[in-house]
Amino acid sequence: MAARAQPLTDDARRTDPYRSRLDPEPALVDRVDPVVYGKGAPPPGLDRAMVERYERDGFIELEGLLQPAELAALQRELVRLREDTRGIDPDTLICEPGGTQLRSIFAIHEQSALIRRLATDERLVRIAQYLLGDEVYIHQSRLNYKPGFFGKEFYWHSDFETWHTEDGMPRMRALSMSIALTENTGFNGPLMVIPGSHRRYVSCVGETPEDHYKQSLRRQEYGVPDPGSLERLFNEGGGITTFTGAPGKIVLFDCNAMYGSNSNISPLPRSNVFLVFNSVTNRLVAPYAAAKPRPEFIAARRNVTALVPRSGPLCD
Amino acid sequence: MAARAQPLTDDARRTDPYRSRLDPEPALVDRVDPVVYGKGAPPPGLDRAMVERYERDGFIELEGLLQPAELAALQRELVRLREDTRGIDPDTLICEPGGTQLRSIFAIHEQSALIRRLATDERLVRIAQYLLGDEVYIHQSRLNYKPGFFGKEFYWHSDFETWHTEDGMPRMRALSMSIALTENTGFNGPLMVIPGSHRRYVSCVGETPEDHYKQSLRRQEYGVPDPGSLERLFNEGGGITTFTGAPGKIVLFDCNAMYGSNSNISPLPRSNVFLVFNSVTNRLVAPYAAAKPRPEFIAARRNVTALVPRSGPLCD
Repeated sequence: MAARAQPLTDDARRTDPYRSRLDPEPALVDRVDPVVYGKGAPPPGLDRAMVERYERDGFIELEGLLQPAELAALQRELVRLREDTRGIDPDTLICEPGGTQLRSIFAIHEQSALIRRLATDERLVRIAQYLLGDEVYIHQSRLNYKPGFFGKEFYWHSDFETWHTEDGMPRMRALSMSIALTENTGFNGPLMVIPGSHRRYVSCVGETPEDHYKQSLRRQEYGVPDPGSLERLFNEGGGITTFTGAPGKIVLFDCNAMYGSNSNISPLPRSNVFLVFNSVTNRLVAPYAAAKPRPEFIAARRNVTALVPRSGPLCD
Repeated sequence: MAARAQPLTDDARRTDPYRSRLDPEPALVDRVDPVVYGKGAPPPGLDRAMVERYERDGFIELEGLLQPAELAALQRELVRLREDTRGIDPDTLICEPGGTQLRSIFAIHEQSALIRRLATDERLVRIAQYLLGDEVYIHQSRLNYKPGFFGKEFYWHSDFETWHTEDGMPRMRALSMSIALTENTGFNGPLMVIPGSHRRYVSCVGETPEDHYKQSLRRQEYGVPDPGSLERLFNEGGGITTFTGAPGKIVLFDCNAMYGSNSNISPLPRSNVFLVFNSVTNRLVAPYAAAKPRPEFIAARRNVTALVPRSGPLCD
């Protein structure tokens, strides 16, 4: 079932439209893949205008999808897992740079029954299936704590650039959902996106060092877009959109959207569940620009069966 | 004219209401000094309601004080000084942590004729004189560049805590003016203040190492308020106010206001002129908790003659 990490052929490398980290100069190229793969009427939770906005901007916000009791259960799960990480694989626990405070737990849909249930919920899965025009599975999941006072910034990046070069995701046919569990204000390091940036691709300079992920989950040093390309995306796309709002709000964005967040010195944490849905026909192959693939908890290879959507509330 | 840095007597240390960096535990104490020292009718640019807001919150915003031509001249000066620092004392040039990008030029009112003129402008000086109820001089000045992309955060601090412990400023009778030279958006690391925090004083733990300023201007490690006190100020004071707005806006805040800023990964720089006015009866003595005073360009001791307000436009 799982795609094997066979070495890429020279031909596959040569014809790769999303070449990165192999050249001495950065480049800004056009996306060759669709943004919206689905046809016909969108599923519940989406309408035509939202689909058009997603296609144009690379993101949309969904409100009111989760019931208050469901949100409360997710918030309790957030606290429970921070206070008791005994059942959690230590490799999946990531701390803040230079600190011991918990930043994220990866592969959370495999370690929390509630978040497993969330990841298969038909309200989310039907939307992912529609936009990607295919059956889907979870490529990556995490619970982000982003604690108050000392939350560090996360520099601009396209997730797809990393997933392509380091994990071997062939094409742009994946999307992320960020489900807010705390309030996002202008000052607690909210997610920022450059609208329209998903239609371009920034080819980054620099080779990927071995076991790069051990540092990059804390602080990014390779696969970093150059300031010139960022400035062009910023000027082409009309600036920066900052996502603020109440807990429960869901930001849905394309795998190639350019995003990041500033630091958070406020006392308010900024916590969310982060789920990445990938099309089953876009399963991972060998990395396009790294010696060996990253571990399963960051980039699924084994557990890539199509999700079966579940209906009904998340919890009783 | 200048106050001498005579060693403090034991008695002065014992009766200091703003003791800090000398005890093993942090403390949150009440301010014993007035916030507004002036009596009677406020000067042009201020009204009663603004004075009351300043007293309550510890800050106010002033708009329309500078004419467009004056603002444009200050913006040209900002660019000129970044591009040609030949006339500038190298000690006063501060770079971003871990980088070579210019963050600030200190003692800028002594190195730029235009900013010298701004610092003596009657529109600003009369306001400072009224709020401090006294003649005033410039305790510190700087031009802040806060470049785009890699602008680092500046953690919460009360300037007064540093000026008292490291520079020997006796009491809370100083204020700062930050004059925006670029647009301040929610995402380019704008100034954040905790309203009402100026009425309390956070006594910090830890001794001040010698020549601390060489690091602290880039990254603060001593004189850092504890999270517990910050959380109390945040809850008492009603959260955080973020200053956004167009170039030319002036934020005026009390020396003991708790403020900071998040990082700036956006392409937009956040530049301002920063002027600190101190009452002439509050000139520096010996540091309250440091072996030797910091240099003149950070904390004026020699050049502390009362400013003579100048009328008319900043430039032709």
